[in-house]
Order: sequence, then structure tokens, then C-alpha cells
Amino acid sequence: MKAREMMDKNYLSVKAFDSIENVSKIMEDYKRFTCPVVDDNNKLIGWVTALDITKGLREGNDKISEIMHKPEETNALKEEDSARKAVLEVNEDRVLAIPVFDDNEILKGIIRSFDVIETFSELYETKVYKIYEAMQGQLKGVTWDELMKASAIVSTRTTGVKITPEEYDKNIHNATFGNAVWATGGLENFFVGLISVGEMVIARKIGQRRK
Amino acid sequence: MKAREMMDKNYLSVKAFDSIENVSKIMEDYKRFTCPVVDDNNKLIGWVTALDITKGLREGNDKISEIMHKPEETNALKEEDSARKAVLEVNEDRVLAIPVFDDNEILKGIIRSFDVIETFSELYETKVYKIYEAMQGQLKGVTWDELMKASAIVSTRTTGVKITPEEYDKNIHNATFGNAVWATGGLENFFVGLISVGEMVIARKIGQRRK
Repeated sequence: MKAREMMDKNYLSVKAFDSIENVSKIMEDYKRFTCPVVDDNNKLIGWVTALDITKGLREGNDKISEIMHKPEETNALKEEDSARKAVLEVNEDRVLAIPVFDDNEILKGIIRSFDVIETFSELYETKVYKIYEAMQGQLKGVTWDELMKASAIVSTRTTGVKITPEEYDKNIHNATFGNAVWATGGLENFFVGLISVGEMVIARKIGQRRK
Repeated sequence: MKAREMMDKNYLSVKAFDSIENVSKIMEDYKRFTCPVVDDNNKLIGWVTALDITKGLREGNDKISEIMHKPEETNALKEEDSARKAVLEVNEDRVLAIPVFDDNEILKGIIRSFDVIETFSELYETKVYKIYEAMQGQLKGVTWDELMKASAIVSTRTTGVKITPEEYDKNIHNATFGNAVWATGGLENFFVGLISVGEMVIARKIGQRRK
């Protein structure tokens, strides 16, 4: 995934000669806590946050140009950069938004912390049965019932709590990947569980083939 | 994972009778865009954002009590709530922070969008070889070399690009789960790849056992 695919193209921008008062109204109306400052060619020339605005208002400044940060002081990404870079920077530098540029330094979009969370959420909200369906598709000849039976056995063995194949089936239709990772205590554990199930049905499949 | 485990206990809070001017300075100093308002018992009685502060400063308000939102207007979680609820609310309502309470309605912590991103990032940044190690641990008797050989075959077959087991080994030491999910086009695809590898080494293992 590229920064280009994660960024919001409908960002709000202001001009250096705008008054702090007007920009504060715009940011309030659009509920934006940070805002890029651009020139007429949409080149980034500065950056303001709501906290720069509070300071500017308090100290009696007039224009955005008096309070804005320089572009060099903000994180910046290219459209072709990996989205992972955005995630790492938002996480490490705890910035609410990162501007994304094309090769001519023109501002093309903004990646906000919400865009990062949205991308993550999609992954986290993947239903577990979708992963089982993919598994069944790969393990040609294995039925859904066999998969549920093996899963119930593995689950009972791992947790010590008895569960029927029918209950397991119902559970994975409700559970998300995020639930499952947290419930099993981590990504590796989650995959180990799936691999155990795979191992069991594959062994059975190969056994039957040889009969 | 519970809300309790995701929340930041070292949150900043202010009082209703604090002046807007002072609170704005505090929020600037600590780089906080939102802030809970509590009473002497640490009960939440309001909530302010930097955008409430800009409006308050502009309109000449004096005390925080004049501009704060009521607790009913903010998202709220219990310590025992699922962390997933925090993720969904931050994502859907696009709030920067959610207060977390105990059963007596006392404020115990704040889950900020950064806390959500940090939790997600840990998962995303899991190195792929860790998943392979877990897989090897589960598939007793399978060597790392066998796993890499099978992976190189599956990868070459899937992508059409020839890769050696040594290159594959190197790749998964660099690649993260996030990279891999994006590179394969989704969680299900990533997992199908792992199952293909598992299928290959399990078939070989069972074959050898029967010799």
C-alpha cells in the first residue's frame, strides 16, 4: 500500500495572508486540528495546528504567516512512499497529520491519524470465517464440516474448554481477526492455532487419499 | 484486550473554574488537543478540545465551565470494555480521545487515537519470520530449511518471480506482517500463502513418516 492510497485528497488548506481569526473559524467548522498552508500553486509553505492558533489568538498575532511552522519542521511523504512509513511516523512522532507530495513538491493529500486507524480497522474487522474460507479454498477437497470439527478439537485441546463444531462455526462468524488475535494472545498464537487445524485436516486428507 | 490495557493513565485534566487562557497554555505545553474537565473526586464533568479553546478565546469567554462540552456529549468507555470498542468509536466518530471510567464513574484513563495506533502498529510491525518460527514450532519435525524451500516454491509459483530459499529467508527477516498483508493483497491471501507452505511441508513430513 502506498501513501497515495491512504491519503485524504479532500483536505482543507489556508493561505499565509489569511487572518488567524478566520482560520480558527474554518478549523472549528470543519473540525480540523491541523491545517496546511499553501501558496497559489498548492505548494506547502507552512503548517498550523489548533494549538498554534490558541497561542496566536492569546498573544494577539494577526496573520497565519506569523505563527505557522516551516515545511521543514513537519513530517512529509511522497505519494509513492510506503503507507507503512506514514504509520511509523504517526506512531513515533505522534503527529495528527502528514502532508503527501508529488515529485514537484506540490501538496496532493494529507494522511491523518484517522486514515491510519481506518486502514488498520479494516484489517482488524476481517471476520475470522473469511480466513477459514480462504483456507478451505486452498486445501482442496476439505469440507467445511471437517474444518469445523478439527477446529473444535484444537480449540478444546488448547483452552481446556469443550466446544462443539457447531459452536465453533457460530463463533468465527461473529469474531473478527482483532478479537481472535487478542483472545489467543498475539498474532503468532493465532496463526499457530490455524496451522494446527490445517495440520489435522491435511493429515486426514492425505490419509484418505492413500486408502 | 480491555480498554484498561490500552488507556493512558497519565492523562492531563483541568478544572471547570480554570481560566481558558491558562488551560490553553497547558494544552500547548503538553501538546494536547483535547482535555477532560474533572471535579475534586476525579469525576468527569466536561470535556474541551483545542477548537473549543480557539472559539472561547475569540469570543472572549473566561472560564472553562463556559465552553466545555457535557460528559453526555462525549464517547465514554468502562475499564472492562473491549479495546475493540475504542477502536470502532475512534474510527467511526473520529474523536481524538475517549475517557475510560471505573464502575463509580471515576475517570481512570484516556484512550487517544495514538494509543489505538500504537497497539495496531505493534501487530503490524511483527516480523514475518516470527510467524514462521511459530509455524515451525507447531509442525514438529519440520526444519527451517524445509520451510524456506517450500516457501520459495510457493512464492515463485504465486508471483511468477523466481526466488531462492535463501532470498526468501532474508526477505521474511526484513518484512513485517503489515508489509506482507499489503504485498499479498489482504489478510486472507497472506494466510492462504502460509497454508500452501504448511500443506507442502506437512505432506512431505507425512510422506517421510510412512517410508
